[in-house]
Amino acid sequence: MSKTTQYRRVTSDIICELTSICGAGYVIHDQPEKLESYSHDEIPGKAYRSMPEVVVRPRTTAEVAAIMKLANRERIPVTPRGAGSGLSGGAVPVSGGIVIATDRMNSIIELDKPNLALVVEPGVITNEINEFLREHKLFYAGYPMSGETCFIGGNVAENAGGGNAVKYGVTARYVLGLEVVTPQGDIVEMGGKLLKDVTGYNLVQLMLGSEGTLGIFTKITLRLLPLPQARADLLCLFPDINTAIDVVPRIMTETGITPTSIEFMDSDSVARACNYLNESLPVESCGAMLLLTFDGMEQQQVEEAYIAAGKFCEANGATEIYVADNPSTSERVWRIRRGIPEAYNVYSSRQSGEDLVVPPAVIPRTVAELKRIASAYKVMIPCYGHAGDGNIHARIICPPDWTDTRWTDTLKTILIEIYTYLREVGGRLSGEHGIGHKRRKYMKYVVSDEYIELLRAIKRAFDPLGILNPGKIFEEKDEASGL
Amino acid sequence: MSKTTQYRRVTSDIICELTSICGAGYVIHDQPEKLESYSHDEIPGKAYRSMPEVVVRPRTTAEVAAIMKLANRERIPVTPRGAGSGLSGGAVPVSGGIVIATDRMNSIIELDKPNLALVVEPGVITNEINEFLREHKLFYAGYPMSGETCFIGGNVAENAGGGNAVKYGVTARYVLGLEVVTPQGDIVEMGGKLLKDVTGYNLVQLMLGSEGTLGIFTKITLRLLPLPQARADLLCLFPDINTAIDVVPRIMTETGITPTSIEFMDSDSVARACNYLNESLPVESCGAMLLLTFDGMEQQQVEEAYIAAGKFCEANGATEIYVADNPSTSERVWRIRRGIPEAYNVYSSRQSGEDLVVPPAVIPRTVAELKRIASAYKVMIPCYGHAGDGNIHARIICPPDWTDTRWTDTLKTILIEIYTYLREVGGRLSGEHGIGHKRRKYMKYVVSDEYIELLRAIKRAFDPLGILNPGKIFEEKDEASGL
Repeated sequence: MSKTTQYRRVTSDIICELTSICGAGYVIHDQPEKLESYSHDEIPGKAYRSMPEVVVRPRTTAEVAAIMKLANRERIPVTPRGAGSGLSGGAVPVSGGIVIATDRMNSIIELDKPNLALVVEPGVITNEINEFLREHKLFYAGYPMSGETCFIGGNVAENAGGGNAVKYGVTARYVLGLEVVTPQGDIVEMGGKLLKDVTGYNLVQLMLGSEGTLGIFTKITLRLLPLPQARADLLCLFPDINTAIDVVPRIMTETGITPTSIEFMDSDSVARACNYLNESLPVESCGAMLLLTFDGMEQQQVEEAYIAAGKFCEANGATEIYVADNPSTSERVWRIRRGIPEAYNVYSSRQSGEDLVVPPAVIPRTVAELKRIASAYKVMIPCYGHAGDGNIHARIICPPDWTDTRWTDTLKTILIEIYTYLREVGGRLSGEHGIGHKRRKYMKYVVSDEYIELLRAIKRAFDPLGILNPGKIFEEKDEASGL
Repeated sequence: MSKTTQYRRVTSDIICELTSICGAGYVIHDQPEKLESYSHDEIPGKAYRSMPEVVVRPRTTAEVAAIMKLANRERIPVTPRGAGSGLSGGAVPVSGGIVIATDRMNSIIELDKPNLALVVEPGVITNEINEFLREHKLFYAGYPMSGETCFIGGNVAENAGGGNAVKYGVTARYVLGLEVVTPQGDIVEMGGKLLKDVTGYNLVQLMLGSEGTLGIFTKITLRLLPLPQARADLLCLFPDINTAIDVVPRIMTETGITPTSIEFMDSDSVARACNYLNESLPVESCGAMLLLTFDGMEQQQVEEAYIAAGKFCEANGATEIYVADNPSTSERVWRIRRGIPEAYNVYSSRQSGEDLVVPPAVIPRTVAELKRIASAYKVMIPCYGHAGDGNIHARIICPPDWTDTRWTDTLKTILIEIYTYLREVGGRLSGEHGIGHKRRKYMKYVVSDEYIELLRAIKRAFDPLGILNPGKIFEEKDEASGL
């Protein structure tokens, strides 16, 4: 990267200054074994690892602002980091420099019940939000699959999708306001406890999914909803993958019912997760399954919805349907769904986790195309994910006997073929994981040069020195990508 | 404005070139009586009027792109215009130059039922979208009060709110994709028929509410929903304004029911609209009323909701409640609500229509504050609007016997007092009408300098020459505002 050479290194004077800002216990710099855990996210393997020069763990907005002012003055790259549960290398300090870890900024600041709003710091673990809200009969609709570990700040930075998005939409719909530290170290309030606001450009929505490249969130105002009082899951088994996936886009359009979730898992994904979790599901002989969730304020309403949707699945090829209408059965099924990524991570480090998104009705064609490509290149591409909103997670997995070179070269060819297909059908590179470092070189296969140039222009407008999370989302114009 | 002097004028050569782009019948330049109707929007009075030098009415994206390339080359300001139904001066060519009227770009391009998406041109009248969709049992959830005349392109440019936003949210939630002509005349596709997409910054959402200052929309992809099969309205009469408005933020938090609409009207607003429309409502003796709408797929579900909400209103001071459960009664009530702005427009041209937005629970305090200010300054400030989402339309109306100077001076003082109050309670200048030319000088009373500087930086990133809809949203840094 041409710009990297212009960054300054973290000197002992800088360490001193960072220590005076955050306190000595919260600056990590000379312990490689501690720094190492800040060098990667959840992408397996070594391709997307890079060591920070120093990690700081600020407690307050003022400390974050002071760090950014220092970094801006000295032109040192800064990478903000949540729980490190990302899947696109977004929190990896690819140019070294400072990592700002937000784990100490983990307070729930204010529950404002009359305004159905919750103000939190970025380091709060996502699941803890709903644990806190339960007694108030309220809930936050975000449900990323990594909710047990991920931070809400990371969810905002990536505009996380997750399991509830078919009915509730993604993170962006529930973020009303942000306190942001800019790359220059200014503190800016955006939005607020407001359900509508057109006072200038929509800065809050621009920040959503900006992957830590435009500003660092230090407070987040979330919109809450009344906690649904009823819920049920349907596990629908299909004889083969085509029959299952063909049903997905039609459930809503043909029944008029909007499930909370429509998750798809092919047989390999289910088997691998069950094996990893030492679980069993009655799925040995099925080719694919759909997991449908329904929720609402009334039990009867939820029952009517899942019965109608179940009948639709049955009429369209489902061979067996199981109802999970109590929390423990429901959690057992969802745990398997959530366990798929980790099951693949431990299986092989030579793989590429893709996060394709297409118009919902194009899901069947897309899964067929992935299977064709897998067969043509002799790799495995198991598929699972949030099929109801057009988002398929496809894992491209290297056969054990390939050389690294064969794998690297073939993977590039496969990705270009997939992304070129995506462009043809109006799809995009990522539905919820982000572009980060992992996918930025492939942006040009899916969006136009003019689109990328607008992204660059926005980045320059916020961060003219290019110090905040450099090397993410897009390549610089003068960068040679080699693809 | 310092930059205005740097713009070039529209010469006869430019007119020739525009004519060769759009055709002779679609370039208006030497007929002042025709140009005049492009000099204003729906703000009454003369304060926010400004004549264009030329109006062009392109038919295609390519024509819009050619016009922008020409304007960019010659540095001529361009103001895009929908139906001219705006309320913030957004479509007014304050620096002269070219107005691009989008009225000929009025095709519904594609209904994609499997993807629940509709692709339209910007000049389609908003209500025509739902007229078109009805036979397909689908609907577009946007419901601006000016739906009979406004264009969908204007709704996108202003991120229109409207009557359905309590349940369905604002325009932004239903815009999935845009084709945009940039200030440089490039054509850029953003988003698509995708329910989630994190492929780069959220350009679609940045465009939503950008008031025609960042790009011109030439195609819009809307998200559709299944058409609700049942609907009912409740008209709840209250003895006084305080009792009515106190109920608003509590309807949802205390009953758990989310109405489609929670509209508030004080007695003066209702009386004036009834008088203007030659209508009568049984409201002579009431102090204020709430209009609640409920919709859903099942009649029974809607009935249960409106009965519960009605009981809540009754228990909290409503004296009379009327149910409108058929389309003609419902339309009669809503026509009165929609007629309020025009009723005030014809009453006086010396007025200021405000579009305040506050956290929903702050609505009662805000209405009380407006009444206090009205009394202190001896003006009328009738209030009405989308109280359920914290959005109050307040009309500050000049007493007939005041001089123009007294009115202008007092209005400034009142606005600064209101906006300073808004900042204190976490409110903002506009919930749905936009900042435009009307409110830009007041931005500094509600948001920080750093916030405004970010808006300017985004504008410069998209439009370095400042040719697209200049003079809107914010003042330039070197502009003397006089406030």
